[in-house]
Amino acid sequence: MLRYVDTGYTPTEDDLIAEYYIGSSMPLEEASEWLAAESSIGTWTDLSTMKERIVKLKPHVFYLNRDESTIKVAYPGDLFERGNMPQILSSIAGNIFGLRAIENLRFLDIRFPDKIVESFKGPRFGIQGIRKILEVDKRPIIGTIIKPKLGLNEKEHAEVAYEAWVGGVDIVKDDENLSDMVFNRFEKRIEETLKLRDKAEERTGEKKIYMPNITAETNEMIRRAEFVEQTGGEYVMIDILTAGWAALQSFRNLDLNLVIHAHRAGHAAVTRNERHGISMLPIAKISRVIGVDQLHIGTFGVGKMMGGPEDDLRYQEALTGELSGLEPVFPVASGGLHPGLYGMLCEIAGKDIIIQAGGGIHGHPGGTMSGARAARQAVDAIMEGVPLAEYAKSHRELGEALEKWGEGRR
Amino acid sequence: MLRYVDTGYTPTEDDLIAEYYIGSSMPLEEASEWLAAESSIGTWTDLSTMKERIVKLKPHVFYLNRDESTIKVAYPGDLFERGNMPQILSSIAGNIFGLRAIENLRFLDIRFPDKIVESFKGPRFGIQGIRKILEVDKRPIIGTIIKPKLGLNEKEHAEVAYEAWVGGVDIVKDDENLSDMVFNRFEKRIEETLKLRDKAEERTGEKKIYMPNITAETNEMIRRAEFVEQTGGEYVMIDILTAGWAALQSFRNLDLNLVIHAHRAGHAAVTRNERHGISMLPIAKISRVIGVDQLHIGTFGVGKMMGGPEDDLRYQEALTGELSGLEPVFPVASGGLHPGLYGMLCEIAGKDIIIQAGGGIHGHPGGTMSGARAARQAVDAIMEGVPLAEYAKSHRELGEALEKWGEGRR
Repeated sequence: MLRYVDTGYTPTEDDLIAEYYIGSSMPLEEASEWLAAESSIGTWTDLSTMKERIVKLKPHVFYLNRDESTIKVAYPGDLFERGNMPQILSSIAGNIFGLRAIENLRFLDIRFPDKIVESFKGPRFGIQGIRKILEVDKRPIIGTIIKPKLGLNEKEHAEVAYEAWVGGVDIVKDDENLSDMVFNRFEKRIEETLKLRDKAEERTGEKKIYMPNITAETNEMIRRAEFVEQTGGEYVMIDILTAGWAALQSFRNLDLNLVIHAHRAGHAAVTRNERHGISMLPIAKISRVIGVDQLHIGTFGVGKMMGGPEDDLRYQEALTGELSGLEPVFPVASGGLHPGLYGMLCEIAGKDIIIQAGGGIHGHPGGTMSGARAARQAVDAIMEGVPLAEYAKSHRELGEALEKWGEGRR
Repeated sequence: MLRYVDTGYTPTEDDLIAEYYIGSSMPLEEASEWLAAESSIGTWTDLSTMKERIVKLKPHVFYLNRDESTIKVAYPGDLFERGNMPQILSSIAGNIFGLRAIENLRFLDIRFPDKIVESFKGPRFGIQGIRKILEVDKRPIIGTIIKPKLGLNEKEHAEVAYEAWVGGVDIVKDDENLSDMVFNRFEKRIEETLKLRDKAEERTGEKKIYMPNITAETNEMIRRAEFVEQTGGEYVMIDILTAGWAALQSFRNLDLNLVIHAHRAGHAAVTRNERHGISMLPIAKISRVIGVDQLHIGTFGVGKMMGGPEDDLRYQEALTGELSGLEPVFPVASGGLHPGLYGMLCEIAGKDIIIQAGGGIHGHPGGTMSGARAARQAVDAIMEGVPLAEYAKSHRELGEALEKWGEGRR
């Protein structure tokens, strides 16, 4: 029987390294053997068809941490097809989750070798490209999601967007539930909303962005993206996990002149349990390697969604740190945010983030425009280094927001 | 504030019904309100932009089971885009998994209204179509996966397939880790393997099937499928979860004259934890609605993969029971199976199944051809109603298999 555990092994630069937590009643070594075999060249019994040449393709479990029950596996690069993310994931995040020998398995982290990274597109715009389009140098980018997320017709949708832009928001995004609906058709929505974007730009003298949700089967998604481009849009939004990696790759491969905003609806079905599933860390790296420009990573311990600041800082690092020379991806914080939380958020995450708020803008007592003003005022206060409560004394809308929702402090 | 719980509500035939388990420190009603709001028209705060007309789109939590902590939600059909599975999932299996108000959430089941089912293709072949291609009326279909899963070159791969076919296997499948590899190129593998398929058909007088793994980004996947069709293949295999729903839909929409075998690598990352994630039940229904012809559902409590017989029987029912008039999908049992388990498997699952074995065939002491013979002998014994051990007395290969791996009994 082949053996895979070899703590004396030093990974080469062509190896792909995956890190796992293993929960098993077996000793860690033995469970590791099952994992390494199933994710590469082995199976549960000896084979008449095994050959010496093939043994060279075997992965090495080169690190075992018995206290944490984690392991690192170095897979020879040739086990993977270049430019084929589904194949990579079918190997290292596939059948192994269902092995009887392992009760719990969490895919914690990944290091792609340069040769594999080079076979994907990576981000076309990234943080610098997006700041250039927006003509905003240093401050956090302010985004909003149109709310209610479903039910507004095309004109109503465009009007809410207009109020948000005029109030001071940079980016307006469709909700992930909104695509081409009977009460709000995709093409008409794009036309109406981009028309009012032009008007908002004229009125404010600022660059304004609309991110339409093009999520659909691959060809329809591409058709929608081309419509956005033809209608004068610069951005699209894709729900990357419900659409899937194959479609995302197909889309990115087209190399359209459109910023890709990645929403991650459904991620918590796999990311939430700390002892099973897939961490957001590999998901963030995979998204960057394929080539999204913006990605939701959480609210750094603030807001309505799960997750603490430490985790989100690691995802931020995955998006913006060194990764085979790829452009950094803009991290998006979204979910239950309101202006009273922006200060805390920027203290934790810095200013290279996109702060999105839906209810925290449209739920403002003065309505959407006041909510957008409050959001912009909060960002201005942060950039001037003035505490929010103090800034609110001379800025009515921020004051009203703090009065309704309070101010979060660390 | 809108309220969604309404146990007096009777779902209409146009409603989509989703069932969830909720684990929350909140009372079930309150947690249900969060879930229903986030998955439809609501958010965490009151909105200035809400309208009476929109309130009509709200879903109803019409069933609560406090003992089991499960709920059923009826969503008006208009909340969903027809023919857009990613959008449907972004709504009912999206952000809700990450809500702070709910610690654990499991998406248990789904009922699609006819109008939504009709907007998808459904299976083109299904069980009857496949039996017709194979010219096999009643017995279980015997499949094998080429092992070792990675490392064989194209000719070696074809030769192993040939031995399996000649020994008595109906279907030979690529492993999910095998796509277009440096040591085994896709096109050459298809050519070599289909050539030997023809030879095996000639030698045995039986119809033989090869299922090449075409999993890749959408366009490459389609290109590969067209190559398979041109080269005389009738089947393709797609890893549906690592490729994703958008690509699967795009592929099915082409309506190619190819049977779609769906592998589900990675499913256990979401299906395994009984209190979180997504059950295989909705995944099976979604796959059927989009239109796969064969789907892995487990080994009915037998073999190397997790899962008990009761669960797998429910997935089988999801694939083969009434679903808006769709063709039944052929259930595939795979993972650690060997001939000694076939009897038990058919007792539980019946004979309308595809029994796949990799190691359980190529690991036979006499090699692949003997392993295939043993598998076919086991199926013949089952069809003749003869106990395996008895049949093995006059069938050497089956005897050797039982000697190596034993016989499983309930």
